Amino acid sequence: MFETAEIGRKVSKKDFKERSIELRQKLLRVQDELRESAAFPVFVVFAGVDGAGKGETVNILNEWMDPRWITTCAFDEPSDEARERPPAWRYWRRYPAAGRIGMFLRAWYSRPILARVEGGSKGEFESQLEAIAATEKALAADGALIIKFWMHLGKKQQKKRFNDLESDPHQSWRVSKQDWKNWERYHDFVDAAERTISLTSLPKAPWHIVEGENPEYRSLHVGELLLEAIQRRLDKVKRTEEVAESLPPEEPDEESEAKCPDKRVTVLSALDMSHQLEKSEYQDELAKYQARLNKLDRKAQAKGVATMLVFEGWDAAGKGGAIRRIASALDARWYAVYPVAAPTGEEKAHHYLWRFWRHVPRAGHMAIFDRSWYGRVLVERVEGFASSERWRAAYSEINAFEEQLVQGGIVLAKFWVHITPEEQERRFSERQETPYKRWKLTAEDWRNRSQWDKYEQAVHEMVERTSTHEAPWTLVEGNDKRYARVKIIKTVCDRLAEAVAHRDKD
Amino acid sequence: MFETAEIGRKVSKKDFKERSIELRQKLLRVQDELRESAAFPVFVVFAGVDGAGKGETVNILNEWMDPRWITTCAFDEPSDEARERPPAWRYWRRYPAAGRIGMFLRAWYSRPILARVEGGSKGEFESQLEAIAATEKALAADGALIIKFWMHLGKKQQKKRFNDLESDPHQSWRVSKQDWKNWERYHDFVDAAERTISLTSLPKAPWHIVEGENPEYRSLHVGELLLEAIQRRLDKVKRTEEVAESLPPEEPDEESEAKCPDKRVTVLSALDMSHQLEKSEYQDELAKYQARLNKLDRKAQAKGVATMLVFEGWDAAGKGGAIRRIASALDARWYAVYPVAAPTGEEKAHHYLWRFWRHVPRAGHMAIFDRSWYGRVLVERVEGFASSERWRAAYSEINAFEEQLVQGGIVLAKFWVHITPEEQERRFSERQETPYKRWKLTAEDWRNRSQWDKYEQAVHEMVERTSTHEAPWTLVEGNDKRYARVKIIKTVCDRLAEAVAHRDKD
Repeated sequence: MFETAEIGRKVSKKDFKERSIELRQKLLRVQDELRESAAFPVFVVFAGVDGAGKGETVNILNEWMDPRWITTCAFDEPSDEARERPPAWRYWRRYPAAGRIGMFLRAWYSRPILARVEGGSKGEFESQLEAIAATEKALAADGALIIKFWMHLGKKQQKKRFNDLESDPHQSWRVSKQDWKNWERYHDFVDAAERTISLTSLPKAPWHIVEGENPEYRSLHVGELLLEAIQRRLDKVKRTEEVAESLPPEEPDEESEAKCPDKRVTVLSALDMSHQLEKSEYQDELAKYQARLNKLDRKAQAKGVATMLVFEGWDAAGKGGAIRRIASALDARWYAVYPVAAPTGEEKAHHYLWRFWRHVPRAGHMAIFDRSWYGRVLVERVEGFASSERWRAAYSEINAFEEQLVQGGIVLAKFWVHITPEEQERRFSERQETPYKRWKLTAEDWRNRSQWDKYEQAVHEMVERTSTHEAPWTLVEGNDKRYARVKIIKTVCDRLAEAVAHRDKD
Repeated sequence: MFETAEIGRKVSKKDFKERSIELRQKLLRVQDELRESAAFPVFVVFAGVDGAGKGETVNILNEWMDPRWITTCAFDEPSDEARERPPAWRYWRRYPAAGRIGMFLRAWYSRPILARVEGGSKGEFESQLEAIAATEKALAADGALIIKFWMHLGKKQQKKRFNDLESDPHQSWRVSKQDWKNWERYHDFVDAAERTISLTSLPKAPWHIVEGENPEYRSLHVGELLLEAIQRRLDKVKRTEEVAESLPPEEPDEESEAKCPDKRVTVLSALDMSHQLEKSEYQDELAKYQARLNKLDRKAQAKGVATMLVFEGWDAAGKGGAIRRIASALDARWYAVYPVAAPTGEEKAHHYLWRFWRHVPRAGHMAIFDRSWYGRVLVERVEGFASSERWRAAYSEINAFEEQLVQGGIVLAKFWVHITPEEQERRFSERQETPYKRWKLTAEDWRNRSQWDKYEQAVHEMVERTSTHEAPWTLVEGNDKRYARVKIIKTVCDRLAEAVAHRDKD
């Protein structure tokens, strides 16, 4: 795979000077255009052989462009905050916003490759690469431009490079014992590299193998590839905008409805909505489960079990009330409630999962989401905020996201709180009449109501596609608030108890 | 101090119901107005006796208002990322933006009080309280509304509260062994509380002592105080805006110039600008110090010494070039360069120091600032972006900030890179003529040049007010870039060497 990167390509200093002047101007121009359009984020990933000039190339790109709109991230050993979360968490935190460039060194490819070279299993290695590919696909599908450079150096050239540096007293610090140790394992490293490149060269996130020996050649080559990639994407965005303007607006998509011959029969219509609890029974049960939840919360804290609770449901279904009954049994230091409103500017400039990654809890903590990432396949689908291609892709993006959470040891419980249209109407009217509840009711709520069938279809499909063994949906019959609250808190207790018991066995 | 909060104030359930309905509506209304105006952030701090209803009050306020615009923060033991930074770092991360409400439980008052009760020294305790007061003053001066509630319960009432809870099998979990242990030390706790309230009751961040025994009374009381405080501030903002509209624009302030009879004589005019280095000597020296810096960087990493480098200077003074010479000797995992541009929306919605607190490095890491918090007393002063009252206050705010950094073990080195107006003109012209450098030169640069004398005054005063023993300014004669780069890297080495040696002795 790397033979083509050991053929001694060179650029003379004189040529370098001339070509770099032109390249700098062009890079500055596209960077400017990128920033002004804020059309997409650019991910530039560097990996490869030590001594092949990854760091130097990043430095020179920072020198050629305006560094205020570039973030350079190199990753060390994870901190405890990072170790207590899925591995991808610390990378998501550093993802660039639309219009910006993020340069990544020793990032998500580093640890899998090193682990493999140090004797990690092939299965483990490849499943990590698959998770990376899934993330990059999700980012690219959302518009991110991802460009990956594999900086190569032959085994002999690497040795020569290390020797040259070591013989210069001012440069010898650049070569460490670890570098020589890695050099000994050069072939294992190249094997892992080949596998990495094979499995993660995606149409929308390709690897470029760059011959690293000659600094002038590699800088120009990387710079030119980067320039071309950004320029091409900017042009494409412009063309797409032009085409979009001349097209009629997208028709609402009917395909999913076709899949369900009688669209009245959904997972929701199958629920028994007559469940209810008497007040005194409710009070006893609630107090019992709150006490149980408090004990479990403390155990989870001691054992480092993190939990994410997701609440979705119709307007006025009682999500907030259920959340408060749970929260009041918890220690305020270990939980946080995230009410999900329209995204902020910063959030809009990132992938839609970015803002949820920010709130992944650390070990022993609980994050409660009042609405969640499922907005993508509910409101964004029904209201047409996401294209049908995008919300359809979201099912597998969400599954991949949740898989990472669960593999990271997080307990994930998802609730759909269901009420009937009649009950919703009753509650809306009640809100209308109670002065301090009126604010909760907006014109949008009434409008959403008129889309009931479409939402019900979306819920049905969401449950079908995203209720997995590890992260199942719990459908809650919510016409009686008391019954719903007890069912929810009991479910949370059961899930936590299971996780805590499981952790005991480890 | 607390006698007035042990007199058994009560509100009947019936009265509570009536009054709370009205209060909720009003709270919602001011919250709405606050959010729309985005005029200031609201800090609501809860502290006090266990069992006095801090958590319950926060819950009820969240229920009464729209929780999407409230963040509730309760703090546990600090994570390692927090422990490796000054104590205030983790609080700054959670400060609310303008228009939002932050509710703080077990926050910055918790640890000093507990440490004092557990036998910590009085001096230590009071200096922590002073640091807190300084921060709150800085926030308030910037417009934040800070309101602090001390929830009180007499020793007997606390005992009764614990006994009541324990006798209910569903509630007994609410009382821990630690609670009873603290109860034994009730009087020590009250002593520390009194001292806290005395030292930190600021005109713009007052404490309200709230009798905590009766839930209905305390909820209404806190809600009403909060309502009144927000309402009063909103009114004041409106009045100020009206008055401001009818006033002529603020005159540029001449007072500081008066202090300096011959305004040509400044710390800058006293520099010997003839220093220079030959190319070969420069190359030797630079390589020598880069090698030294690399060793020190690795030592600092091993010993957990964090470093912050601040670069200020005239446009085209060579800050970027100096930073690159330093960065190329460092390990990319342990440093980050922060080029400080105009603040983003999120940054503008916070205190101006907030965005710098975000970038305080953890142990062993280095943060390099290309321009910094000194913008407040340089560009914001000269261009009139900050009122003269605000930039004047900034000197002590900055000193307090830097004191916290230094006390947190951070090495702080600040460089003013100086060039003469003639040298600047030469460099501007050169940039004008070099295509890939032209972008660095903006109309603003030429405009800033015309304000040279005002900037020079501002620099002079900045050095006078903020060059402290622990965080001195280094003035760099920058007409010769080589000389400047070597002086800077040597200074960084010396400061780091000193800190590493000092850490050895510990």
